[in-house]
Amino acid sequence: MVEEPEDARMMYMSPSLSSLDYFMESYQARIDQLNEVRNKGTKVVGTFCLFVPDEIIFAAGADRIVLCGGRTDTIPIAEQSLPRNICPLIKSSFGAVVDACCGGKLSCPHVQLVDIVVAEATCDGKKKMYEILPEYVPTYVLDLPQKPGSSEALDYFRSGLRKFGQFMEGLTGNVLSEDALRREIRSSNETRKLLHRLFELRKQDPPPILGSEILSVMQKQFFLAPNQFRQGVSRLCDEMEQITTEPRSGRRIMISGCPMAAGNTKMSDIIEQKGGVIVVEESCTGTRSFWDLVDESKNPWTALAERYLEIPCACMTPNDRRIARIVDLAKQYNVDGVVYYTLQFCHAYNIERLRVQQALKKEKIPMLAIESDYGDSDIEQIGIRVDAFLEMIS
Amino acid sequence: MVEEPEDARMMYMSPSLSSLDYFMESYQARIDQLNEVRNKGTKVVGTFCLFVPDEIIFAAGADRIVLCGGRTDTIPIAEQSLPRNICPLIKSSFGAVVDACCGGKLSCPHVQLVDIVVAEATCDGKKKMYEILPEYVPTYVLDLPQKPGSSEALDYFRSGLRKFGQFMEGLTGNVLSEDALRREIRSSNETRKLLHRLFELRKQDPPPILGSEILSVMQKQFFLAPNQFRQGVSRLCDEMEQITTEPRSGRRIMISGCPMAAGNTKMSDIIEQKGGVIVVEESCTGTRSFWDLVDESKNPWTALAERYLEIPCACMTPNDRRIARIVDLAKQYNVDGVVYYTLQFCHAYNIERLRVQQALKKEKIPMLAIESDYGDSDIEQIGIRVDAFLEMIS
Repeated sequence: MVEEPEDARMMYMSPSLSSLDYFMESYQARIDQLNEVRNKGTKVVGTFCLFVPDEIIFAAGADRIVLCGGRTDTIPIAEQSLPRNICPLIKSSFGAVVDACCGGKLSCPHVQLVDIVVAEATCDGKKKMYEILPEYVPTYVLDLPQKPGSSEALDYFRSGLRKFGQFMEGLTGNVLSEDALRREIRSSNETRKLLHRLFELRKQDPPPILGSEILSVMQKQFFLAPNQFRQGVSRLCDEMEQITTEPRSGRRIMISGCPMAAGNTKMSDIIEQKGGVIVVEESCTGTRSFWDLVDESKNPWTALAERYLEIPCACMTPNDRRIARIVDLAKQYNVDGVVYYTLQFCHAYNIERLRVQQALKKEKIPMLAIESDYGDSDIEQIGIRVDAFLEMIS
Repeated sequence: MVEEPEDARMMYMSPSLSSLDYFMESYQARIDQLNEVRNKGTKVVGTFCLFVPDEIIFAAGADRIVLCGGRTDTIPIAEQSLPRNICPLIKSSFGAVVDACCGGKLSCPHVQLVDIVVAEATCDGKKKMYEILPEYVPTYVLDLPQKPGSSEALDYFRSGLRKFGQFMEGLTGNVLSEDALRREIRSSNETRKLLHRLFELRKQDPPPILGSEILSVMQKQFFLAPNQFRQGVSRLCDEMEQITTEPRSGRRIMISGCPMAAGNTKMSDIIEQKGGVIVVEESCTGTRSFWDLVDESKNPWTALAERYLEIPCACMTPNDRRIARIVDLAKQYNVDGVVYYTLQFCHAYNIERLRVQQALKKEKIPMLAIESDYGDSDIEQIGIRVDAFLEMIS
């Protein structure tokens, strides 16, 4: 039986990472900054998904923050309009918008900061929720082909990105130049490379940082301004490179599946409380956000379309790239097991689980599937299952 | 309180419609015919959705049958691979395929008849289920833009249809000529016009046919060959035109929402058992399948792309056409109330319910929302709610 340490950090890390404080401290400063630039006329875009390219938003002279909700307290508000049996991320996000726009008291400061939501046609739940959003906040929806890999799909998506660029020009009153777009592509690639450096450090055994700490960093990726985020990640890498960790017996775990929006750290917390060592997350709040770079040598619109269409999200069909990526990550990070995490009622990730399981089975990598919402009621039950899983792979 | 007649037909119809027997009797003959043409080399395509144009399949010299499942007994087989909390239609359909391909004993004869499945990227559940299908049956997936209305979306879909046409040429070894395509468009339009004639007769008060009878006819639309189906509908219309119905007090009901595949008649049965008079179904097994014609004066590929992309399915965003269609049908058919029917866990129709409800409220048309699976356990509860609804609108 795996023991339950009171504090997982105690088991294998002596120094806490002081550079993590940067991310905590940066929160209010960023809110203040956004208020300030908005007062000076800069438009702020709210996004919900990796498929909306930051590069286009920034190249048009706008700023952006992510609006994905990880809070539970906004869900009851959403359930007045949306079905209860849809994913908690969608309900939480929508509830935050409704609350903020109807003078609610939950004080989610993000919604009030955005001039427009730029959404995307990914999963059924989000796609249909976005149709109700315009009652509360102006909303632009970027269409996505669902079957990537053909030149026609690429053309369709590229034309959608160009249209979005024109829309951003209209919104901001700025010209979106190809030079600016190339500059923003370089900037985003810089962030991606830095995150590769951060994740590379997690290959150590044991890694010098907790999975829950990485999650709190990754949740800031689309909230902070790119230079602010890079400054924090760079400091963190510097600090981590100085740390020598003591070997320990915890099992190396990859989490794979749905994103964990700010406020939702349930799964990572449980795994680490049970003594599991999270070494990599194949998710939108993990590798999916930064793994692939945009090709700087190509026409920027084509390069953006190619790169973004290749995001291995389960909304795409078939999603062979994701299956291959998971197996590759499992090997690169020398994982002992994979925890497949699905937000409740997320059909795409839930059904794709079968193909992931089949692929991992071939490689003899054990997998535990967990489907959960944002509530507390299943924490104990998930804990028992994680415990059993860790014991099994010991 | 609305009375519960033992047989709804008794309340307002004297003669039973003998021409309905045609549809029952045609079942085995159609199976035999498909076996026969297959033995002679004709390819048979299995489809799951209105978005796959029959015209292209027939113009390439192939035949087709629908594979959507309405049976409950195939669901447990599906749940060995798929999550339980997805829509019963997807589970039922998938289970039938697995059972048929693995020598099961449920004797669903349809799957054995098809050479290939032609699927479509509509909802998350189906889209991801189709990725597992190739383990059992060859599968071709037609991509769909999710945001219709732009010239780019039309171009993308048209190019997808042309590719599908080329695929069908490869499968059958036949040339798919533009003439053949025009011929099949005329044929499908003929079916659509005939269904308009059938549905027009339901505007009578009371209509000379039950909703559950219409459903059993509509479920044959993509099973029978077009000329067989038309022969049956034509006879039925002839017979209905001769009938004089006695006025009665039942409330006129529109069902709107998810399709009811063969085997699933639960909702229509309950409404009619409770004395409701179903006069129109806004669904894939109702108006959605035939309401709009293909423009015969245009290039056939463009005309097909335009018509099929306008199918007001909830997988499209925004789906204003559906909202307008529902209000229009409610007025045309002089309905007293709408039963909004969602297959359990169908996010698209479930979330779209809000917009439908808002539109109907403006028109002061009452709506009852029912979400259900294929099981029996909620029949009594739904009955009570339908009863209360019928009483409310009396």
